[in-house]
Amino acid sequence: MIDLLSLTQKLVQIPSQTKNEKEVCDFIESWVRTELPGIPLSRSRNNLIVCPPQRGDRPVIGLFGHIDTVPADPDQPLGVIKDGKLYGCGSSDMKSGVAVMMGLLKEYEKFNADLVAVFYDGEEGPDVGNGMRGLMPTLPPMDFAIVLEPTNNAIMAGCMGGLHAIVTVEGKRAHSARPWQGQNAIFRSLPLLAKLRDLPRREVNISGLTFYEVMSPTMASTSNAANVIPDKFEINVNARFAPNRSENDVVAELTKLVGDLATIRVRDVSVPGQVCVSHPLMQGWIERCSLQVEPKQAWTDLARLTANGIPAVNFGPGDPDRCHQAIEWMEIANLEKCYNLLSIFLTEICQVKAEPEA
Amino acid sequence: MIDLLSLTQKLVQIPSQTKNEKEVCDFIESWVRTELPGIPLSRSRNNLIVCPPQRGDRPVIGLFGHIDTVPADPDQPLGVIKDGKLYGCGSSDMKSGVAVMMGLLKEYEKFNADLVAVFYDGEEGPDVGNGMRGLMPTLPPMDFAIVLEPTNNAIMAGCMGGLHAIVTVEGKRAHSARPWQGQNAIFRSLPLLAKLRDLPRREVNISGLTFYEVMSPTMASTSNAANVIPDKFEINVNARFAPNRSENDVVAELTKLVGDLATIRVRDVSVPGQVCVSHPLMQGWIERCSLQVEPKQAWTDLARLTANGIPAVNFGPGDPDRCHQAIEWMEIANLEKCYNLLSIFLTEICQVKAEPEA
Repeated sequence: MIDLLSLTQKLVQIPSQTKNEKEVCDFIESWVRTELPGIPLSRSRNNLIVCPPQRGDRPVIGLFGHIDTVPADPDQPLGVIKDGKLYGCGSSDMKSGVAVMMGLLKEYEKFNADLVAVFYDGEEGPDVGNGMRGLMPTLPPMDFAIVLEPTNNAIMAGCMGGLHAIVTVEGKRAHSARPWQGQNAIFRSLPLLAKLRDLPRREVNISGLTFYEVMSPTMASTSNAANVIPDKFEINVNARFAPNRSENDVVAELTKLVGDLATIRVRDVSVPGQVCVSHPLMQGWIERCSLQVEPKQAWTDLARLTANGIPAVNFGPGDPDRCHQAIEWMEIANLEKCYNLLSIFLTEICQVKAEPEA
Repeated sequence: MIDLLSLTQKLVQIPSQTKNEKEVCDFIESWVRTELPGIPLSRSRNNLIVCPPQRGDRPVIGLFGHIDTVPADPDQPLGVIKDGKLYGCGSSDMKSGVAVMMGLLKEYEKFNADLVAVFYDGEEGPDVGNGMRGLMPTLPPMDFAIVLEPTNNAIMAGCMGGLHAIVTVEGKRAHSARPWQGQNAIFRSLPLLAKLRDLPRREVNISGLTFYEVMSPTMASTSNAANVIPDKFEINVNARFAPNRSENDVVAELTKLVGDLATIRVRDVSVPGQVCVSHPLMQGWIERCSLQVEPKQAWTDLARLTANGIPAVNFGPGDPDRCHQAIEWMEIANLEKCYNLLSIFLTEICQVKAEPEA
């Protein structure tokens, strides 16, 4: 097995905020060309598909990992190792998963599965920039996919859908020396923001798994000068919805909540991902390794795969509770454990098909 | 008298949002060079001091006008004349005043006062970019100054001080799929915003004039990505304070209001302007023309003049209730009226000093 910790550390030390993935993609491409010379590799933008020779007599398993991160907090350490943890933006979400993908690729010959590894950009930004959008039609057929998003080495099934809406509260512009002549859009937003604050998270049960539906204001901004009473206050509301609900359901709920306090413009929708734990490959693996099975609360590209008929689960070494936090880390012990569990999946659960009788 | 309406219209048709005053300054400079050939004129950046020959035997009267505007609303007409009004960003604040200054300059020879006209940039932005800061030390001595800010041809005495503070509410960052792991800084700001909303405007009486002290959030913004629970929400609070109060008084009040809900960073302070209506020149003019005398609610550069020992009032043709509004206009009839009232001031109230007895 390659040194997964040192590889993860190197990946974390290369900043790769969404739209700035070139350097980290160059690193991965160069690693593949060095460690797996001659293996077919295709790159478009900062997306890589690595496709070791297919033997054709065994299941094709896709491994998926995004290589971008959210913007790093300025105080965040960059790949520091301390007390059994690796610190840095992207350590959990999901450069540790990317390192495990690279480790598995390196050993592809010994598995009872054919591998396809997909490294892609733009996952943490708006859906329109997500590298997977362009890659989907170009993917080779596959029997099952593992998305190595942070799950603490549990199977996280399905995933929440996501919707971003710009909720605009209007006011009446005035000189800030005479606010009584205007209507402050920030003040006019307070009843709406209080409603959002008081909204409880909602439990939704699917195949015995509990998903939590939530709706939060994640960005807010005025667009006027400092000496003007704002006549417009724009709030980005991010809703996360369960696999059994649709975009229309969410828009209807938001519309009801907003009432006549504001206008709504949906700017980004990510469909939810289906729950695939009853697939035979999963049943075998869960039983063999006593894997924990949980619902995936955050959106992942699993949704795009299941929507295109590729069954998939999330399974990766990162800690889902640490990602998108000001201080992000990952448990170093999780790296080898993840690699070993996936090795068992690829050698013991995946099987070479018996040759048909002559 | 020159055609003040056509001149105002031309000025309004040249957009001059703060930091983009070059074109309008070029226009004024070229007008002065054409209409008043040989008159001393000095330009620095987009600031012009026009100083017709001083006869030395009469009061020196300064005329002051800023040539920038707030950002125009995209739907705002640009110098349209309709129903006795001229529409456009800057029509009231204060290109009509600038046109009157130009009209008076044109007739400088006939007045019983020596004129100094100052056209300057950067008034609507942060104080650090205000053209008057650099001009103050270079101004010739003067006995009184008229600032032609919008006053509807009333004398508006004194002016409110202004203070901008960045009030930062902190939260705890988290993935927006799991908001319960964080603390939304927008939600944490609600008690503070409600306090600001519920703050009454406060009346302050000075020399029989009533000023209104107010405090408003004028800008607000998060700085995180859309799928993150914000850990920081920055609110620009703009306080306007009466001539008898200081920056320290206002900071103390804001600090008390904010309590432990947020941190405060003062980023811009404009001192208040003193009330100068008891000056003999003003007493004479007010009586002669039955001028209305009011307190000036908005900050103007009058404050900078009185702080430097130059008595001054605001007096201009624009409508203070229309400035910084989405649709700004000015009453066309006010232009000639303003010109005539200032002509009376400069011919009847200002007087050539009697020659001392031989």
